[in-house]
Amino acid sequence: MKLEGLSILGQGRVTAAGKSYAAINPATGLAIGPDYFWATTADVDAAAQLAAKAFVEFRRWSGQRRAGFINRIAELLEANAAAIVERVTLETGLAAARLQGELARTCFQLRLYGQAAASGLCASARIDHADPNRKPLAKPDLRSMMVPVGPVVVFGASNFPLAFSVAGGDTASAFAAGCPVIVKPHQGHLGTAELVGLLVQQAACECQAPEGIFSLLYGSGREVGIALVKHPLVKSVGFTGSRTGGRALMDAAAARPEPIPVYAEMGSINPVFFLAGVMNQKPEELAAGLHASVTLGVGQFCTNPGLIFVERGNGADVFLQKLETLIAATASGTMLTADLCAAYRSGVEKFSNFSGVKRQAQSKADLGAGNAQAGAALFVTDAETFLSNHHLRDEIFGPSTLVVQCRSRAQMLNAANQLEGQLTATIHGLPEELQANHELVEMLATKVGRLVFNSFPTGVEVAHAMTHGGPYPATSDGRSSSVGTRAVDRFLRPVSYQNFPDTALPAELQESNPLKIDRLVDGKLIL
Amino acid sequence: MKLEGLSILGQGRVTAAGKSYAAINPATGLAIGPDYFWATTADVDAAAQLAAKAFVEFRRWSGQRRAGFINRIAELLEANAAAIVERVTLETGLAAARLQGELARTCFQLRLYGQAAASGLCASARIDHADPNRKPLAKPDLRSMMVPVGPVVVFGASNFPLAFSVAGGDTASAFAAGCPVIVKPHQGHLGTAELVGLLVQQAACECQAPEGIFSLLYGSGREVGIALVKHPLVKSVGFTGSRTGGRALMDAAAARPEPIPVYAEMGSINPVFFLAGVMNQKPEELAAGLHASVTLGVGQFCTNPGLIFVERGNGADVFLQKLETLIAATASGTMLTADLCAAYRSGVEKFSNFSGVKRQAQSKADLGAGNAQAGAALFVTDAETFLSNHHLRDEIFGPSTLVVQCRSRAQMLNAANQLEGQLTATIHGLPEELQANHELVEMLATKVGRLVFNSFPTGVEVAHAMTHGGPYPATSDGRSSSVGTRAVDRFLRPVSYQNFPDTALPAELQESNPLKIDRLVDGKLIL
Repeated sequence: MKLEGLSILGQGRVTAAGKSYAAINPATGLAIGPDYFWATTADVDAAAQLAAKAFVEFRRWSGQRRAGFINRIAELLEANAAAIVERVTLETGLAAARLQGELARTCFQLRLYGQAAASGLCASARIDHADPNRKPLAKPDLRSMMVPVGPVVVFGASNFPLAFSVAGGDTASAFAAGCPVIVKPHQGHLGTAELVGLLVQQAACECQAPEGIFSLLYGSGREVGIALVKHPLVKSVGFTGSRTGGRALMDAAAARPEPIPVYAEMGSINPVFFLAGVMNQKPEELAAGLHASVTLGVGQFCTNPGLIFVERGNGADVFLQKLETLIAATASGTMLTADLCAAYRSGVEKFSNFSGVKRQAQSKADLGAGNAQAGAALFVTDAETFLSNHHLRDEIFGPSTLVVQCRSRAQMLNAANQLEGQLTATIHGLPEELQANHELVEMLATKVGRLVFNSFPTGVEVAHAMTHGGPYPATSDGRSSSVGTRAVDRFLRPVSYQNFPDTALPAELQESNPLKIDRLVDGKLIL
Repeated sequence: MKLEGLSILGQGRVTAAGKSYAAINPATGLAIGPDYFWATTADVDAAAQLAAKAFVEFRRWSGQRRAGFINRIAELLEANAAAIVERVTLETGLAAARLQGELARTCFQLRLYGQAAASGLCASARIDHADPNRKPLAKPDLRSMMVPVGPVVVFGASNFPLAFSVAGGDTASAFAAGCPVIVKPHQGHLGTAELVGLLVQQAACECQAPEGIFSLLYGSGREVGIALVKHPLVKSVGFTGSRTGGRALMDAAAARPEPIPVYAEMGSINPVFFLAGVMNQKPEELAAGLHASVTLGVGQFCTNPGLIFVERGNGADVFLQKLETLIAATASGTMLTADLCAAYRSGVEKFSNFSGVKRQAQSKADLGAGNAQAGAALFVTDAETFLSNHHLRDEIFGPSTLVVQCRSRAQMLNAANQLEGQLTATIHGLPEELQANHELVEMLATKVGRLVFNSFPTGVEVAHAMTHGGPYPATSDGRSSSVGTRAVDRFLRPVSYQNFPDTALPAELQESNPLKIDRLVDGKLIL
């Protein structure tokens, strides 16, 4: 596939016009061709109009047919894996092995969400039969199912150039729901976005999807992104990125004449609590596990553990010593972009200058040719300092973590109680310690989307039971998950049919259950 | 029960202070004792603090225990039905028979939502088992369920002083979810609110609920209401009322440092489409049915059919003639408040003055002693006028409707396409006409929460398959329903547990399924 640096508009391309921007290799700082042309306001309108038109047809597609389209995207990604991985490596500095894994995850994700559409899981069909003899009023026949909300704008994430980008989780779940998608790709992987976008375009063509089911517009978040969110034909938004960026989209969406939902996953510091019993049993093993999680992918995961609570004691001392050694010895890594690396360095500087916070260890990294090399960092403080300085709850996106030493379990509980909404919280302990700390577990359950026991938060399983979400400010909407089949539900809404003749009902709601889907019939689940 | 005119704060009452306001009988315009004291900012804070404290315990209650509390409220309502109905009649002008029905509905609703909590339906438990042998990475054990979001503020509706007020649908669904409730009652039924509030307080006491699970604060929406919505410990809002009021709450909630969801049901004009075949078959019967729906409860329902589309022809002429006769002969009725009646009269005046719109019929009503007497009104226009004047899509809350005469099916479709989001749309036709008009059906399905065939939109069944919702501006959040068991879902969010020991899991997620609830296990529903 030849890259042209042009936005994708339905089955066509946008003509080159105006300013253009280069894709940059973060390892070298050098431009990689071609240059990319930013979309205009007219392109935004054209993509939204096309998407709204496509929606009229796409929303009628059966779950089975939506799955066919989604599966075809997965097949095309697999068929072009080598070219894709090569380009992503150049644009992001991520290792080929990691990207092969991410590509496999992306395809698994597409197929799982397709299956959720095909199986009727997401339709969530309900039937309440009529009762003409009910007193005082006859009971009508009432049937409901979930239907797609309309065109969705998806913002690609920097840190998952495949799994949370053009054909990533937000796009897969919107397609599974039956919603057309307009992608605003991240500027950190412009060529990857084009490669994958062309494959989605090809899949749409092969599956005879209505034109406009997919478009991809290059541009800045502030211009093209906000224009898309404000467009009256756009009905929902998926975003993964910074809190500043996410909140800007939330505010723009809420201020529309017709407000629309924004699903923004805005990161988290993912607190980890080490209870004393397990800490005394295997401090070095826990330090090694934590170090691997903190430095995985140069720390560029939303679930990176950036805040660690330990109870003071012998175990914690050994743990800290081991962690210090490991962090100090961590190899330098290329971050996704020079901007992210600059933000990381400035975060590390900020923490270093806080009174009461000690920079316990830092691994060497010169900036490298691309100004994007980062070393790992370890900070240590006590609970009093942590509680008195709310800046210590800020995320440093990268391979850094802060250990908070607590004098008691009560102090740990108190510190936990001050935390904002998080994607995850992790507890390491002996099983009996979990019982003894049920207050901590229950309090954390009110603050997070996912509780992890005796493992680490990085590694987000794509599964039915996954919640990748959590109360604000981890996400814009704590009622949602952006990973797993619940992600599809974000782009659905219920519609009821009252007293409709069977033949005029969608297949999901017809009495004979022709699709053989699970349904809630008169209050009972019928398989 | 003796009414004191005081707000309810947990198990206590707020001391009388500051301004007080009288409850008014809309039939006579006279004050009914006692006077009601508005809550202060300090009361708002106290109620929110108490609710947040209660939440720590209430969220741990089993669904069964929540159901017990909710059922006790229903029992107490039934035991005090006579006193309640007497007071509501005085305050609202609604007939005793209607209110007895509404009380029965309120109790049915409480019990149904309690059952949804007890049966595990709303927990929506999911289990994905571990697979230690999966390559390249072991698969963790992952389990998720829905948990309550936290304290909910409920705004009582004027038009359902029982079913959508203090112990109405929003309160019932928040309690079923496990959320404490703070009610801001509507000023149209202050004494009813106190009576019902005291019963909820009593049920909470009898069921040993944590104090703060329920409070009720009198005051204006702009002051007490907005202060509640802005309070940082409040996590969600339920509202039924005007678009202006709902939007003000949405904007306040979106502008918070931590934005929270608002579920505002803001009304609708509920278009009804009469297809030619059925119209020619039984025009007089259809006119009678429509008239009953338009004038039911003096037209004070969110699902009141305010906009009617007919295809020109003999049937439509007979229909219109009959409707004109019926509207002209409609008895005058007392509206809920003098303010609502004034708004109704001004809406009727506004429509009367539009060019191209004919006031075809209006029934007599002098204002009455309470300035709250309303007659019915019928307006007629053509599709061209309707399409050229967007004010004709405004709701007139009361017993009025506008008939739009269309020259063709295409014109009807075009007019339908211009509609905003609605709670309902209704189609009258022969079954074969429904097939021939599938384009109309499918387009309406994108605009409404509920499609009705050959009946009328008033009468909202409390059922699993009900959607009482719809795209903005019918509601603030088209993904939700404020009636039926889906209403409970509004106050829930998912939480996942990864690799937790079985004994540390909530009962809903334990391997042996001790609660015997339906669960999605490894992608399959298991009963």
